[in-house]
Amino acid sequence: MERILAVDDIERLAIGAGILGTGGGGNPYLGKIHVLQHLKRGAQIRVIGIDDVPDDALVTSVGGMGAPTVGVERLSRGDEMLVAMRALETHLGRSFTHVIAGEIGGSNSMAPLLVAAQTGLPVIDGDGMGRAFPELQMDTFMIEGIPPTPAAIADHSHHTVVFDHISEPNTIERYARAVTIQMGGGAGLAMPVMTGAQVRSAAIPNTMSLAIAMGDAVMAARGGKGDPVAAALGVAGGERIFAGKIVSVERRNEGGFARGVLTLDGAGSDTGRQVTIDFQNENLIVRTANGEALAIVPDLICLVDEDSAEPITTEIVRYGLRVVVIAIPAPVELKTEKALAVVGPAAFGYPDVPYVPMAGVYGQGMTAAIR
Amino acid sequence: MERILAVDDIERLAIGAGILGTGGGGNPYLGKIHVLQHLKRGAQIRVIGIDDVPDDALVTSVGGMGAPTVGVERLSRGDEMLVAMRALETHLGRSFTHVIAGEIGGSNSMAPLLVAAQTGLPVIDGDGMGRAFPELQMDTFMIEGIPPTPAAIADHSHHTVVFDHISEPNTIERYARAVTIQMGGGAGLAMPVMTGAQVRSAAIPNTMSLAIAMGDAVMAARGGKGDPVAAALGVAGGERIFAGKIVSVERRNEGGFARGVLTLDGAGSDTGRQVTIDFQNENLIVRTANGEALAIVPDLICLVDEDSAEPITTEIVRYGLRVVVIAIPAPVELKTEKALAVVGPAAFGYPDVPYVPMAGVYGQGMTAAIR
Repeated sequence: MERILAVDDIERLAIGAGILGTGGGGNPYLGKIHVLQHLKRGAQIRVIGIDDVPDDALVTSVGGMGAPTVGVERLSRGDEMLVAMRALETHLGRSFTHVIAGEIGGSNSMAPLLVAAQTGLPVIDGDGMGRAFPELQMDTFMIEGIPPTPAAIADHSHHTVVFDHISEPNTIERYARAVTIQMGGGAGLAMPVMTGAQVRSAAIPNTMSLAIAMGDAVMAARGGKGDPVAAALGVAGGERIFAGKIVSVERRNEGGFARGVLTLDGAGSDTGRQVTIDFQNENLIVRTANGEALAIVPDLICLVDEDSAEPITTEIVRYGLRVVVIAIPAPVELKTEKALAVVGPAAFGYPDVPYVPMAGVYGQGMTAAIR
Repeated sequence: MERILAVDDIERLAIGAGILGTGGGGNPYLGKIHVLQHLKRGAQIRVIGIDDVPDDALVTSVGGMGAPTVGVERLSRGDEMLVAMRALETHLGRSFTHVIAGEIGGSNSMAPLLVAAQTGLPVIDGDGMGRAFPELQMDTFMIEGIPPTPAAIADHSHHTVVFDHISEPNTIERYARAVTIQMGGGAGLAMPVMTGAQVRSAAIPNTMSLAIAMGDAVMAARGGKGDPVAAALGVAGGERIFAGKIVSVERRNEGGFARGVLTLDGAGSDTGRQVTIDFQNENLIVRTANGEALAIVPDLICLVDEDSAEPITTEIVRYGLRVVVIAIPAPVELKTEKALAVVGPAAFGYPDVPYVPMAGVYGQGMTAAIR
């Protein structure tokens, strides 16, 4: 089955992907504008179910690399990922047949749609994270052992850099991050190179559909017709864990990432309580004043506006905002021992915090996957 | 004409290139050991005159990238440059016919010989600096406008990174330097891609011969048979500018470079005087205590042992060493307005120091170029 995306689907995706971005991954707004321009000019974007990908398909995942705080100030041209993908094709001497999101959360949800609009290639319904994460080795393609190189990055001047013969995902992360910083903090990325069979065994399925379904539920509930936050949680399978006001934002750009700590004072039923949220591009852990963890990575921690469920991302969060903190259980693919070694709390610098999975099932309310 | 290099030539080259390294470029010792091993196993290294390079030759320059202080602690495998060159060939879909030194000063003098021994390719008698410089944009290939990319670097694990579509030499310098730091501080480099005609118009000719001739003169004068320092200066065309003892070494690794300041107290006829020498891998400027510049980049400033003329490089210089400071006039190719913009004092952070060329002619005593 395939689905031809309409303008409304792009709007829905932006909302759902924004929430799944868990504060990072960049705001989907700019990518959305690029994609909508292509649709207006007549481009068609096809999303196909992951089970429909042929074994011998040649697939790459595309996205943007860099700190989301930089993306706000230096806009992408919109063709960096395409240039990176073409550089990878030149290196391989072969052309890709499909693209997939590396990261459904945040702006990278729009990345394969943009490349699809530019090339006509179909987009596979799935991704490598089911959310957003800050580093390249943190997707299921890398966790499942797909070789990270060849890989390519490109910048707004169409400078290209191709990495090869690197077997350690953390090494390509370090090398590509170093160049991305030199490129001004943002680059288009195409990696890894996969067969259709590899994608089917390693990807988190149906996440493009999930994000669109979340956005659909949110939009249907807005304007007084329902509770948009509850609608998103119904589809995604999560819960509200805190409501309050941002009273402190400690944020610094460090090693190409936006890192810091948010402090929230409770409101409503949470009045009198305080929580902190640590982030590295994405929100990592929510803790009460006495140190109790309310939600822990890889479970998804998202700040949203109480009335609209509009996601509040790391680069726009600021003192005084009224927010609801929601949590969504991580996809099962991120809860294996192998995955937790890469995306669990210890991998983010919390070796003493055991990962206690929250209750629920990722995407439990979704009924509309492309099959 | 061509010259087949003998073991003694490699020893001579190490001495001459060490002096031309002006403190940086890395000590040629390790490269020499690699090259001698290949000669022992029967490899032949041919050096050909630059006028004998066919117009349609496909040439690249090879060398090591990184701070020389790192090279001492983490030895190269010896095949990093070959791996980089092969990555560049794969990218081009063509094979190189000749190699040339990017930098005749220091360890990079051995680089094309090592690749020649590994591949059988002839080495062109010349280079892009006539000395050593710390950054990629500082060779005559870049100064003359040869496109800097495609370019490739490789590390000891055979990780490869290919850069393309970058027209600014300073940009490839930044990108490649950032990856080199991530590679542990050292990498093999192959760049740029040139035709024979381009090499003939952009290279500084006969510098491999010059370095060997300097080493030959020094060796002939050692053991009480003459004055090795005077012998080197007679071939290279320079002069002694100071003799004394190192009384202070301020050195730090910064941005992938060894930077710092040496202070010397005079001895012999220089007793009672003091000079400082600023360096960034290479020695940049010698100044008296009252600020008078005795020698200024791009003129070559070298520390050598008084008795043996053995070069004393940035990574081994230390408190208490007795040294002679010599200066050699820069090649004419580095004294043009275009070249001085890249390798003159302002380019190294001395905008207020005018370049006053010292008297003399680079290589004026050399009679043995391959023609």
